[in-house]
Amino acid sequence: MNAAAPTSVLQSASPVAYIEQLGQRAKLAARGMAKASTAAKNQALLHTAQLIEQSVDELSQANIKDVEAARAKGLEPAFVDRLILSDKVMASMVEGLRQVAGLNDPVGEISELRKQPSGIEVGKMRVPLGVVAIVYESRPNVTIDAAALCIKSGNATILRGGSEAFHSNQALANLIRAGLAAAGLPADSVQVIDTTDRAVVGALLQAESYIDVVVPRGGKSLVERVSREARVPVIKHLDGICHVYIDDTADQAMAIRIADNAKTQRYSPCNTMETLLVARSIAPQVLPPLCKIYIEKGVELRGDEATVNLLGLHGIAAIAATEDDWRTEYLAPILAIRIVENLDEAIDHITTYGSAHTDSIITQHHGNAMRFLREVDSASVMINASTRFADGFEFGLGAEIGISTNKLHARGPVGLEGLTSQKYVVFGHGEIRS
Amino acid sequence: MNAAAPTSVLQSASPVAYIEQLGQRAKLAARGMAKASTAAKNQALLHTAQLIEQSVDELSQANIKDVEAARAKGLEPAFVDRLILSDKVMASMVEGLRQVAGLNDPVGEISELRKQPSGIEVGKMRVPLGVVAIVYESRPNVTIDAAALCIKSGNATILRGGSEAFHSNQALANLIRAGLAAAGLPADSVQVIDTTDRAVVGALLQAESYIDVVVPRGGKSLVERVSREARVPVIKHLDGICHVYIDDTADQAMAIRIADNAKTQRYSPCNTMETLLVARSIAPQVLPPLCKIYIEKGVELRGDEATVNLLGLHGIAAIAATEDDWRTEYLAPILAIRIVENLDEAIDHITTYGSAHTDSIITQHHGNAMRFLREVDSASVMINASTRFADGFEFGLGAEIGISTNKLHARGPVGLEGLTSQKYVVFGHGEIRS
Repeated sequence: MNAAAPTSVLQSASPVAYIEQLGQRAKLAARGMAKASTAAKNQALLHTAQLIEQSVDELSQANIKDVEAARAKGLEPAFVDRLILSDKVMASMVEGLRQVAGLNDPVGEISELRKQPSGIEVGKMRVPLGVVAIVYESRPNVTIDAAALCIKSGNATILRGGSEAFHSNQALANLIRAGLAAAGLPADSVQVIDTTDRAVVGALLQAESYIDVVVPRGGKSLVERVSREARVPVIKHLDGICHVYIDDTADQAMAIRIADNAKTQRYSPCNTMETLLVARSIAPQVLPPLCKIYIEKGVELRGDEATVNLLGLHGIAAIAATEDDWRTEYLAPILAIRIVENLDEAIDHITTYGSAHTDSIITQHHGNAMRFLREVDSASVMINASTRFADGFEFGLGAEIGISTNKLHARGPVGLEGLTSQKYVVFGHGEIRS
Repeated sequence: MNAAAPTSVLQSASPVAYIEQLGQRAKLAARGMAKASTAAKNQALLHTAQLIEQSVDELSQANIKDVEAARAKGLEPAFVDRLILSDKVMASMVEGLRQVAGLNDPVGEISELRKQPSGIEVGKMRVPLGVVAIVYESRPNVTIDAAALCIKSGNATILRGGSEAFHSNQALANLIRAGLAAAGLPADSVQVIDTTDRAVVGALLQAESYIDVVVPRGGKSLVERVSREARVPVIKHLDGICHVYIDDTADQAMAIRIADNAKTQRYSPCNTMETLLVARSIAPQVLPPLCKIYIEKGVELRGDEATVNLLGLHGIAAIAATEDDWRTEYLAPILAIRIVENLDEAIDHITTYGSAHTDSIITQHHGNAMRFLREVDSASVMINASTRFADGFEFGLGAEIGISTNKLHARGPVGLEGLTSQKYVVFGHGEIRS
């Protein structure tokens, strides 16, 4: 068997049998990856980068099949755009592989080693999770980004991309598997599902014996489906209803700068602000100049009664927000605004309507800043910074496989460390328990 | 409403409505607990300890109802024993509360705070999980032990003990809730389910909106039921098929001492050795004297062919092990023994048959020791120490809520830290994303 051959086609098998076969291979490969040297993992990443550079034509040919099929099906231009492996996308995949190769290897790190009264030394060792499944939509570059993080963190991975990117993903998978084989690592540590049968995803989500965690990457409907169906643990976030709260004592220029940036720097990311909360005492100073900026940038404003009245006095139009607005992730140039009495009311609002993703307070008051930090139970909580910073690169993780609003395991941007866990290690010298 | 009153009886409600009501109260209480001071949490624990000391008669009366009912039902004496709140058990509950009060509070700890190129400082803050459900069997002291760990870690908890301990658990719950109220903390942060309707457990395990994690404590059938039914994440271990591997270069006296202790110090705990693996080259020196000890202690031996033959030469009886023996957690004076070629075969055996709980190598060879540590994918991996050390107290956690063989979140003994997770915190100075 050629180790670098693509995942073999098993389309005649039932979805469950197909996943079992992939799962068995992945588990075996995971053992090899867990003990792989950092040098070998880096070599696999760098070799894959090189192969991509050498295979631009081949990749383009595979990609064209997908793009043409998508256009023929009449899919939206924005969708087709995301499908295209342009020179720029290819360069960013290559750059991503090299960046991940440059990150520290988290595997094997021993921490908190302490001597116990019995004489044993007890610590924790960071180890890969095992087999990571990733279910994503039609951006083929995710195939490379996700595989790179799994390889570096010593995991095996089973990837299932959108069916519209089928040929592109298979072509990319061949290059990754060749890169792994060239580094002496098991090619099966990256397997891309080579059937578009949706029942296979169902089988994957049930395969507790083979899959240690699944990460859905994509829109809310994908994440909802995966969460609903999965028996396997899921690392996910559903919504990004992010808040900025402007406290009584905020520096007004800073508040305006951050609230502007958090909403308008980009509208579609999950860490974009969707609801602005403003303390009553500072609202007359802050809201009119801030909302003029929003209006100039074409942002539709939806406010509670106090906000609508205040803005009306300054000739700024805002429509009345409904209860639904506080619960909506617009991902669009729309902003909900509410005037609150104080910090307590702001925290109550975030607890009631938020999605535990990212929330920020703008304040000069130390006590309020620290209360917000502690009492807002979100994956990322910020003081005097734009919510747009909630991102693996900005947090110094190097890259991210996704963002988690789970309570267990990783919260917030999930990088290499989030693809590992810690086991206990004990160094003894012949100790027995008495 | 009297804050220290017992969980109110809602037996007329449907199981789902009942759990919703408990869940809503728990979520509200969790907010109060998350921001509670360490002093208040300790006060609640110490006050409960005092109340138990003052309420020995009252507790005994409640307990007698349970014990008499159990005897009347003809339940086994060992079962009835575990139900009894003896003076010794009460003293250990009181001692446990004081010990947990003495542990460091993990909540609020900020770590890994680092400045990023954008100017923001990014770190992690340790925070409670929220609402922890614990489903356990008929030892009423678990009510106190589990509640204590949840209180100290800033969580709210919903406890569901075995129906045979109903009156004991309700009486203990009243004391804990009074202790919480005396410390100014929400009494609803500890709720003990006050119905023996089993459908309520089913509703609890589905209540993703209210429960952040469930910890089953008890026998395998309980853990299996909880795992199978739960939509809520479960912290659990199913089996403890623990191995000791005696390597070629083991110190023979140490190997015998540890292999004896790992099996015979106590037979029923989950960290007791169930399978002994011995390298072929050292088996003739180690196995005969070791197995004489086992035989003297009444341990039944089941070996592979090489073991049976070797022991036969020394007049030691061992029956032939079947494939099932390698997969069995005996929890009894029975030991499976296998002679393996080398470290690789030992690791293969553990990977194939183990339960990822606790495994130990006895060796003087540094390279083999470190390979075992890295390559055995179990929650606790040891060098030259008895598997019996895999325990929250022995590991320095102070106490444990259970042992986890999950891959995500906590692995191994789960103490206070395992009842928390880490969120990202960002200290900014007005930074915006460009």
